[in-house]
Amino acid sequence: MSATAMREVTAEDIESLAVGAWILGTGGGGSPYLGLLNMRRLYAEGRRVRLMSPDALADDDAVAVVSNQGAPLVGQERLTDSRNVARAVELMEEFTGKRFRAIMSLEIGGGNSIQPMMAAAHLGLPVVDADCMGRAYPEAQMTSFAVGGLKPWPLTSVDPRGVESIVARVPTWKWMERVSRKICTEYGSIAATCKAPRTGAEVKRWGIPFTTTKAIRIGDAVRAARRAHEDPIAALLEAEDGKLLYRGKVVDVERRTTEGFLRGRVRFDGSDAWRGAGMEIDFQNEWIVARLDGEPIAMSPDLVCVLDGVSGEAIGTETIRYGQRVAVVALPPPEVFLSPKGLEHVGPRAFGYDIDFRSVFAP
Amino acid sequence: MSATAMREVTAEDIESLAVGAWILGTGGGGSPYLGLLNMRRLYAEGRRVRLMSPDALADDDAVAVVSNQGAPLVGQERLTDSRNVARAVELMEEFTGKRFRAIMSLEIGGGNSIQPMMAAAHLGLPVVDADCMGRAYPEAQMTSFAVGGLKPWPLTSVDPRGVESIVARVPTWKWMERVSRKICTEYGSIAATCKAPRTGAEVKRWGIPFTTTKAIRIGDAVRAARRAHEDPIAALLEAEDGKLLYRGKVVDVERRTTEGFLRGRVRFDGSDAWRGAGMEIDFQNEWIVARLDGEPIAMSPDLVCVLDGVSGEAIGTETIRYGQRVAVVALPPPEVFLSPKGLEHVGPRAFGYDIDFRSVFAP
Repeated sequence: MSATAMREVTAEDIESLAVGAWILGTGGGGSPYLGLLNMRRLYAEGRRVRLMSPDALADDDAVAVVSNQGAPLVGQERLTDSRNVARAVELMEEFTGKRFRAIMSLEIGGGNSIQPMMAAAHLGLPVVDADCMGRAYPEAQMTSFAVGGLKPWPLTSVDPRGVESIVARVPTWKWMERVSRKICTEYGSIAATCKAPRTGAEVKRWGIPFTTTKAIRIGDAVRAARRAHEDPIAALLEAEDGKLLYRGKVVDVERRTTEGFLRGRVRFDGSDAWRGAGMEIDFQNEWIVARLDGEPIAMSPDLVCVLDGVSGEAIGTETIRYGQRVAVVALPPPEVFLSPKGLEHVGPRAFGYDIDFRSVFAP
Repeated sequence: MSATAMREVTAEDIESLAVGAWILGTGGGGSPYLGLLNMRRLYAEGRRVRLMSPDALADDDAVAVVSNQGAPLVGQERLTDSRNVARAVELMEEFTGKRFRAIMSLEIGGGNSIQPMMAAAHLGLPVVDADCMGRAYPEAQMTSFAVGGLKPWPLTSVDPRGVESIVARVPTWKWMERVSRKICTEYGSIAATCKAPRTGAEVKRWGIPFTTTKAIRIGDAVRAARRAHEDPIAALLEAEDGKLLYRGKVVDVERRTTEGFLRGRVRFDGSDAWRGAGMEIDFQNEWIVARLDGEPIAMSPDLVCVLDGVSGEAIGTETIRYGQRVAVVALPPPEVFLSPKGLEHVGPRAFGYDIDFRSVFAP
């Protein structure tokens, strides 16, 4: 796949990004809706964001990697303010003494797809068309940068009341997760963060390229189908070489907030071709393992997406509820997670399942 | 009082500092013993520390203010390593981009009297003969710098496993306390910290001068009396214009670790002139209010010290126990805490007591 070196992101692109990124969130990452509202306002004020191909980065360019850290549920109460993430980027520049060339997303799935757009709108920097998850994942070491063994520090963490912290050095990714999570918790379980800066060379070697474009493309396909009164699920599957795993109705939701995560299991009764067949999907913020009549049929790193069966709108693990009619879809995973090292970070065993990974897309 | 601009601290000075600082700890600050062991080793290796008068600081000199943060009880298990505090100072230099001229103690009371000595031995910088408590206090806003309205940030926080964090900006002293305390807790409830750097002008205006010399002088007096088989309590009272408040025996200790503090109350039965009179002293890490037969007779910011009745060795709130024979002594407080603003920070009401401050030393 190719992309032009630099192009302006249109207001329509951002509407599609919000739809497509929510699908790539695989149940997690938080709804992009509040970020979308911020971008509508910023665009109404005349600000514009440019999207930059990772190939256009010089090897020694510095790239800011941003995300909102914390509990998605809290994000529904403390509303998104685009200035927070911009401040996290500025603080990182103050700390490292180096100016950023561009900004990229930690995870393209969910609300964090919009975070670099908000920072970029304030700071006048381009957004790199890439991320390091290709979806959403719950933990700091579940990134292509961690798979690549890149260094986990420093991290800046900012709160709207003016509290600003830096995790300057850690011995392991796990220590980064521990300390930054505690700071975030003291802020009230949500923080705007700028992760370890990456060089252009690192982004080109270990980033997952063109995922912003991919999310926009997915959103375009789904929105076009809706406008044409066609089936958005079919449009998604065709555009992204996806597979339809199931159609059915939610009959049971077990959900608990524990150890800073949302964990649980959803059960479905089948419809259409799946009448009489039961599905259950386990989640840790994101959908991790789907079973059909007890047999695992799809699992991370394959993307398991639960969508409204009519509109194709993604359904989050925090909002799924009894009675919803859904389609369960698998989308192909980023290559980087299919290596033995990749599977160590994000395969089923990384989530505590004693299952060997088998892809829906295996020949 | 005057002091020479710069002098070498002798090994004997450090022995006396450990005794005197523990008395100035007013029950808290943690025992200086492990710090003393570090200094004995560093001196045995040939390292030496110089003590610098605050008057010798240029107005724009940068001064590092250091302390060990956390629970004194944990400090008995994770032993003191002099390199940690040196690293906290280096990290602050890396963050601010400014080299320090000298190092000073946050609190001269207890083990934090030794922290700047350890950093200084590694970094080759002098120790400023001053602190900002004149004793020990439990909370971040209980300093002469906070009374002076100086800015509370930044702070660096270091762990021996290589975790390094910075609280870069906070809206209030209380937020500094909250965020830095959570980081410290995640490290395992103990962290080497470098507090907000001070200029030479700020140290000269708001520091409490010559408290290192004072702690050494107190230690000298007590140790000399011990060697001469004289009464160390009497020697202390004479050297420091102190007042003997009570002699007696510990008959009850209520102690609980709560909200990151050690709180409780100790009861004594009187001896000598106080036979038949009961005393009780409330503490929050440090001794806060002493009552004789229910009547408050001494309270913060006056220094209330509980000492072994024979050796004059200080007794900490974490080690006091049934049956100990003690002398309770008051020492005069730093001037800066006697202003209305000072009493707001460290008077009895700051600790939740509905009592007007009345000094033991009032005419």
